[in-house]
Amino acid sequence: MNQLPLEAPRRVLKLTVAYDGTDFHGFAAQPETRTVEGVLREALARVLRVDELPLVCAGRTDAGVHAWGQVVSLPGDSDLDVDLDVERIAHAVTRQLGPEVVVRDASLVDGPFDARRDAKWRAYRYTIVNRPAPDPFLARTAWWIPEPLDLSLLRLGADPFLGEHDFATFCRKGPPGSTTMRRVLDANWLDLGDGVLRFDITATAFCWRMVRSIVGTLVDVGLGRIRPGEILGLLRARDRDAAGRVGAPQGLCLWEVGY
Amino acid sequence: MNQLPLEAPRRVLKLTVAYDGTDFHGFAAQPETRTVEGVLREALARVLRVDELPLVCAGRTDAGVHAWGQVVSLPGDSDLDVDLDVERIAHAVTRQLGPEVVVRDASLVDGPFDARRDAKWRAYRYTIVNRPAPDPFLARTAWWIPEPLDLSLLRLGADPFLGEHDFATFCRKGPPGSTTMRRVLDANWLDLGDGVLRFDITATAFCWRMVRSIVGTLVDVGLGRIRPGEILGLLRARDRDAAGRVGAPQGLCLWEVGY
Repeated sequence: MNQLPLEAPRRVLKLTVAYDGTDFHGFAAQPETRTVEGVLREALARVLRVDELPLVCAGRTDAGVHAWGQVVSLPGDSDLDVDLDVERIAHAVTRQLGPEVVVRDASLVDGPFDARRDAKWRAYRYTIVNRPAPDPFLARTAWWIPEPLDLSLLRLGADPFLGEHDFATFCRKGPPGSTTMRRVLDANWLDLGDGVLRFDITATAFCWRMVRSIVGTLVDVGLGRIRPGEILGLLRARDRDAAGRVGAPQGLCLWEVGY
Repeated sequence: MNQLPLEAPRRVLKLTVAYDGTDFHGFAAQPETRTVEGVLREALARVLRVDELPLVCAGRTDAGVHAWGQVVSLPGDSDLDVDLDVERIAHAVTRQLGPEVVVRDASLVDGPFDARRDAKWRAYRYTIVNRPAPDPFLARTAWWIPEPLDLSLLRLGADPFLGEHDFATFCRKGPPGSTTMRRVLDANWLDLGDGVLRFDITATAFCWRMVRSIVGTLVDVGLGRIRPGEILGLLRARDRDAAGRVGAPQGLCLWEVGY
């Protein structure tokens, strides 16, 4: 294990990671549980020949939730060799964990860099299959809604979420003292054809269960059970009990993180 | 269990079935093994309240191979109620087996009808992910080839397969006396973007392993290991040992059957 000379410029290892979250209990490491962070830490420790290092991620995805562009950094004070061959690291980790977990990109960036703290925005995608019968090939990555959804209602319902709001209605409670104020930069429904609908939402940050809570409520809007005009009232209620159902985890994917 | 009156018109139950073949040992029923036919027979027997009936299918897919439009018929002499509610059957079977196996359509057709014998053509799709890193979301439904494939070579290599040929080079041996003459009606490569390539091939019928053998050889063409001009010679050799590798099963999907 190499020690960095003190005068060396501090470089931080940054990874862009895709994973199929189906068989993981979420990203964050937990004892006795299979998590993405857990397998990634073990693989990185083997490849870098260091002790297991904690990882920092841009978005802590829940059990069953996927990522295409999760960003992970090693803490800036990790004792890493400055001459790391980052391509080799990406390949070696993917060889160990792929195709379930794949390192799409690896780079050394100037420190200090923290994948969570330095993220300017996160973009999530949520996929729905809206057909009478389920689809065997989208079962792991989409929420199946057999009753017909009205796309124009879905779109009207999404508009009130834009901008800065207190999302307490649409979040599971965080640690005491944490805020549920968030700024949504973009929220769009796309019709991909053949009954496949996708909701793209970008925010500076999200609180816990926020995308799935928004999608669950919007599905009730698309089914005509909640009027689009009621959304603003739900937001203002700042009451978790006011929200509707929560979208299934497998429909959600952390798509991209901006720095 | 209702008996058909002798003078009743003979109707045959026809199902269009989609399945994710990942966790099945192929379509055809085998003792002590999980097969698509096995689970489908059991589910149909429960729904129709009859003893288990053998099924006839349009294309016997191998272990790990998928279907979107597999067609299945119950033998014409099955003792079925002529007043069957086919929509209810489709929903009930899907409720038992979905989303892994889904009955996309069910109908009663005038007999005699046999899903295999009466099929005029079968269309298969084969998907390849051609990128340096594997894709977690396409790992179950595509073959990952990290080295760059030349699409124009793939297309040149596909042309010689069109028309009627003895496909002995590209088939596993069938039962003694069976022919390996087949007529290919269409064979096209599509670039779906982001390194996803799809090979669509339609023939009156296929022999065992034919699509995967053709794709395996075409991949060697796309990598520059076999010249497109060599394909006709391989066909003429009528020798299984002359063929290249066989495409991974998960890339293959029985797409549609024509009657």
